[in-house]
Amino acid sequence: MFPKNTWYVAAWADEITTTPIARTLLNEPVVFYRGVSGKVSALEDRCCHRALPLHHGDVVGDCLRCAYHGLEYNAEGQCVRVPGQGKIPTKAKVRRYPVVEKDDLIWIWMGDESQTKEAAVPSYPWHGDKGWRYRKNTYLIKSNHLLIYDNLLDLTHLGYVHKRTIGGDAETHFAAKTTTGRTEKGVRVERWMLDSLPPPTYTAAYTFGTERVDRWQEIEFEPGLVRIFTGAKEVGGGAPEGNRDDAYGFRGLNAMTPETEHTTHYFWSAAHNFRIDEPAVTDAIYDNIVITFNEDKEIIESQYQNMQRDPGRAMVDISFDIAPVQARRYWDALNKAEAADAGIEPTAKAA
Amino acid sequence: MFPKNTWYVAAWADEITTTPIARTLLNEPVVFYRGVSGKVSALEDRCCHRALPLHHGDVVGDCLRCAYHGLEYNAEGQCVRVPGQGKIPTKAKVRRYPVVEKDDLIWIWMGDESQTKEAAVPSYPWHGDKGWRYRKNTYLIKSNHLLIYDNLLDLTHLGYVHKRTIGGDAETHFAAKTTTGRTEKGVRVERWMLDSLPPPTYTAAYTFGTERVDRWQEIEFEPGLVRIFTGAKEVGGGAPEGNRDDAYGFRGLNAMTPETEHTTHYFWSAAHNFRIDEPAVTDAIYDNIVITFNEDKEIIESQYQNMQRDPGRAMVDISFDIAPVQARRYWDALNKAEAADAGIEPTAKAA
Amino acid sequence: MFPKNTWYVAAWADEITTTPIARTLLNEPVVFYRGVSGKVSALEDRCCHRALPLHHGDVVGDCLRCAYHGLEYNAEGQCVRVPGQGKIPTKAKVRRYPVVEKDDLIWIWMGDESQTKEAAVPSYPWHGDKGWRYRKNTYLIKSNHLLIYDNLLDLTHLGYVHKRTIGGDAETHFAAKTTTGRTEKGVRVERWMLDSLPPPTYTAAYTFGTERVDRWQEIEFEPGLVRIFTGAKEVGGGAPEGNRDDAYGFRGLNAMTPETEHTTHYFWSAAHNFRIDEPAVTDAIYDNIVITFNEDKEIIESQYQNMQRDPGRAMVDISFDIAPVQARRYWDALNKAEAADAGIEPTAKAA
Repeated sequence: MFPKNTWYVAAWADEITTTPIARTLLNEPVVFYRGVSGKVSALEDRCCHRALPLHHGDVVGDCLRCAYHGLEYNAEGQCVRVPGQGKIPTKAKVRRYPVVEKDDLIWIWMGDESQTKEAAVPSYPWHGDKGWRYRKNTYLIKSNHLLIYDNLLDLTHLGYVHKRTIGGDAETHFAAKTTTGRTEKGVRVERWMLDSLPPPTYTAAYTFGTERVDRWQEIEFEPGLVRIFTGAKEVGGGAPEGNRDDAYGFRGLNAMTPETEHTTHYFWSAAHNFRIDEPAVTDAIYDNIVITFNEDKEIIESQYQNMQRDPGRAMVDISFDIAPVQARRYWDALNKAEAADAGIEPTAKAA
Repeated sequence: MFPKNTWYVAAWADEITTTPIARTLLNEPVVFYRGVSGKVSALEDRCCHRALPLHHGDVVGDCLRCAYHGLEYNAEGQCVRVPGQGKIPTKAKVRRYPVVEKDDLIWIWMGDESQTKEAAVPSYPWHGDKGWRYRKNTYLIKSNHLLIYDNLLDLTHLGYVHKRTIGGDAETHFAAKTTTGRTEKGVRVERWMLDSLPPPTYTAAYTFGTERVDRWQEIEFEPGLVRIFTGAKEVGGGAPEGNRDDAYGFRGLNAMTPETEHTTHYFWSAAHNFRIDEPAVTDAIYDNIVITFNEDKEIIESQYQNMQRDPGRAMVDISFDIAPVQARRYWDALNKAEAADAGIEPTAKAA
Repeated sequence: MFPKNTWYVAAWADEITTTPIARTLLNEPVVFYRGVSGKVSALEDRCCHRALPLHHGDVVGDCLRCAYHGLEYNAEGQCVRVPGQGKIPTKAKVRRYPVVEKDDLIWIWMGDESQTKEAAVPSYPWHGDKGWRYRKNTYLIKSNHLLIYDNLLDLTHLGYVHKRTIGGDAETHFAAKTTTGRTEKGVRVERWMLDSLPPPTYTAAYTFGTERVDRWQEIEFEPGLVRIFTGAKEVGGGAPEGNRDDAYGFRGLNAMTPETEHTTHYFWSAAHNFRIDEPAVTDAIYDNIVITFNEDKEIIESQYQNMQRDPGRAMVDISFDIAPVQARRYWDALNKAEAADAGIEPTAKAA
C-alpha cells in the first residue's frame, strides 16, 4: 500500500524522447513519450482494443499509435483514429496521467486527478543552478520504498555500512549533535559533528585549511523524496553560526517511487559546489556515491528479503530510530487520509 | 481451459525417433518414442512406480524402459516387466494417448478416447505434394493459444507489425475486399487486394508480368490449426475468376497446441509452388517468415503479459475483429459441449 | 514437514571460520561463525533491530556484530551492545541453536532445546581414522529430502542409473542376497553379491586376485544420514564369514538436511582404505562418485518435479521397496511423536 495522491518522480527529463518508454509505477504500467511539439505525455500502457502495451508504438505528432492495429491516442488518452473505420467507439480511450517537467525531472500524479496541485510539485533547483554540477543515476531497488527512507533518515549506519567511503569513524556519528523535527511537509534532521576528522571522500576532493572540521548533515524528508545536504568547513570558520561561504558543499537528491510493493525506482543525483569546472572532480564524487549506494542497495535488499520471510514480525527499536519512525508515521497518516477519502479502512501500518 | 476432444499437432514426424522426447501438452506430461518397428507411441511421462519421467528411459523393441528401476511399458501403457520380480502388479500401467502420423505431422488425442475418430484428423497434403516445397519450425509462444488465432485471423495487422516484411502498405489491407463465413469445422476468411502493389517478400522471390497484381489471402480456421493460402497474379490474369495457373502461391500451416494455459507450441511450415528446385528460394521464403513470426511473437507475448495484469478487463472491439470473434465463439461452443458431456458447468468464456 | 528434534549436519567444520556464512536449514535462516576462541556458534540470521541478516556482519571476539547499525550478539544470541546507547533493550536477542563439532562435521539441533542430547550426535569416525582417506562435497538437491533416502536404500537402481560407473550388470543386483531389518535408530540393509564380476570403478582402483569377487553393501539409515559401507574380496577369501582383511573397502557418508520442503543439502564423503598414500587414487574414487551422484541428482530432481505436478497421487510399490518403505515409516513415527509433543495433529504421511 502506498499513497497515490502525491507527486512522484517518474523519470529523468532526458529519458523521455519520441521513442516511447515503458515504466511500471505504483503497480500501474505507464508509457511515456515526448510529442514532436516537445510536450511530455504519460498514458496507460495498454491499448483499449487488444491490450498491447502502447510503448511498442510510434509517436505521430503529439499522438501515440499502437503497433498492432494502428489505433492512435492523443495526449489526453482519447483514441482519435481507428484505421479502416470512420467512427471511433466511445469507449476507445486509455487513462492519462498528469505530468510536470521541472528541474530536469518528470513528476507524475498517479492518484485522484481532482486533487492535483501543480504548485505543490517539489522543487530541486540545484539541477539548474550554475553554481553547482551534478551527475545522476537510477537504481531499481528490490525492496519496499520505505526501507530506503529508513536508511536515509538514520545516518548512524555510515560508520558501519560505508566505513570505507563516506562514513568515517562510527563513534563520530554517534556523538553527532542531532535535532529532529516535523516540517510542514515531512521531517527534518540536522546533525553536527563539530571539530571532527572529515571522511575519506571529503579530503579526496577538497583541501581544508585545518585537519579537523565542523561537519553538518541536513536531511529533509517529504513524501517521494529525501534531500540530503552535507558539508564541512574548517574549525573556527563560523559554520555553526551560519557562515558557510567557501565551504565544502554537497547536495544529494534521493527520489523513491514504488514500482510495486516489493521494488522501488530510486532516482538520485550528486551535486557539488566546488571545483565545478573540473569534470574529473564531478566524476570522482559520482563514482564514490555509486560505491556507497551499492553498499546500501545490498544491505536494503538483503534486509527486505529477510523481512519477507515473516512480514508481520515485531522489531526492536533503538534510540537512533527517531527520524525513520516519524517518517513512517507521516506515511501512515497519508495512507489513512486516502483510505478515508475512498471510504475504506486502511489495512495496516505503512509496510 | 481448452477443449480436449479434438486432434492437436503434438510434434513433427521427424522429431520422434528411438530416443524418447518429453513434451507437455494441455498441461499433461507426455513422452513420445518410435519403437524399433517404426510405430509412434505416446505415453504419460511418469512411471507408475516412483514417478520418474519415462523420457529418461530407453526404447526396447516397441516398449519403453524406465531409467530408474527398469520397469518396461508397451505401446498401450501396460507394464510388461518389473525387473527382479515375476508378477506384474495389476495397477502397474500408465496412460497412453492415441496418435496418428500423417502429412509429416504427429497428431494426438488428449480427450475422451471413446470419441476419437481417426478419419477426422485434419489433413495438410502439401507437405507431401511434389509440386510444393516447404520448410518448418516450432516456436514456444508465451501466451494462451487463442491470441495466436486472433493474430492469424485478422491480417490487417500486417501493415503495422510486418510493414518491413510481408506487410506492405497498411491502406491496402484496410481496402481489401473481405468475406468471412462459418465452415463445417470452423471459420473461413477470404480477402482480395485487387490491382495492388505486391509486398517486398513477393517481388523478392517472384517476377510478375505487371507492376500491380491481384492478391488474395484465404484463411481457414478449425480447432488446432489455421491454414493460410496466399497468392498473387498479374492484373488481368483471371485470378478473381478462379484461374490461378502459374500464379505466385504460398501455403502456411499454423498449428497451435496449448502447452499450458499460458504457453503454446506453435508448429508452422511455409510452402511455395514456384522455383521449387531452387533451395535458395525455399530458404529465402523461410527466412522471411522467421522474421515475420518473430515480430508476431514479440507482440503476442507482450500483449498476453499485459492482459495477465488484469485478465477479466473488457476490451473494445473494432470492425476488423469479426473473424477472430467468430473463432472465439467456436472455441466457447466446444468448451461448453465438453463441459456438458462431463456434467460440469464451464467456468467462463474462452480465455 | 520434517522432524526437528534430531541432529542434522549443518556444515563441514572447515566451512566455519571467522567469516560468517548463511545457510537455510529446515526453512530457518541460520548464520554460522567461529569466534576467535575457535568456538562455533549458530544464530538466527536476522538482527532483532531491523532484520538485516547477521551474516553480513563481523566477528568481534566470540560475538557477531550486525553490519547495519553495529548491534553485537554473543554466542547465546544475547545482544550485548547497542552503539550509541547505554541500556540494552530486554527484547534485544536472537535465537541461538545448539551445535556440536565432531568428525569434521558441524551438527545442529533445530528443535526443542530441552530434548537435546549431545551424546546422541551420530558418529562417523572414518573422517579422522588414519587408515582411511576421504574427499567430500555438498550438493543442493532440488527435491524433498526423503527421495534421497529412497534412492540410497534401494540399490537395485545401480544397474540402470549407474550402469556406466559403480553399477555393473543389472541382473547382479537383482540376484543379490538381501536382508533388511530395523535397528535401534533406523533401518539396516545388507546385500551380498557372491561370486560376481566387480564393477568398473572397483577394478580401476584395485587389483583383485581373482576375476570374480564376493561383494557386499551395508546400508545404515538413521534420521539425517545414511552410511554406506561397500567392499569386495576375492572369492574364497572368507569375506562372507567375516574376514575382510586386505579387502577393497569403501565408506560413504550421506547426510541429508532439508533446506526447505523442496530442497535438500546433501553432504557426502567418499573414503577408502587401500592405496591411501596415493592422492591420485583418492581423487579418482572421488571423481567417480561425482559422476555417480550427478546421475542420481538428475534422476531425483526430475522425479520430484514430476511428483509436484500431482503430489497426492498414489504410486505402485514393487518388491525392492522394502527398505525405503521402512525408512519412511520411521520418519512418519518421528513426525507423529513431535506433533503429539506439540499437541497438534500431524497433517499427513511423510512427504
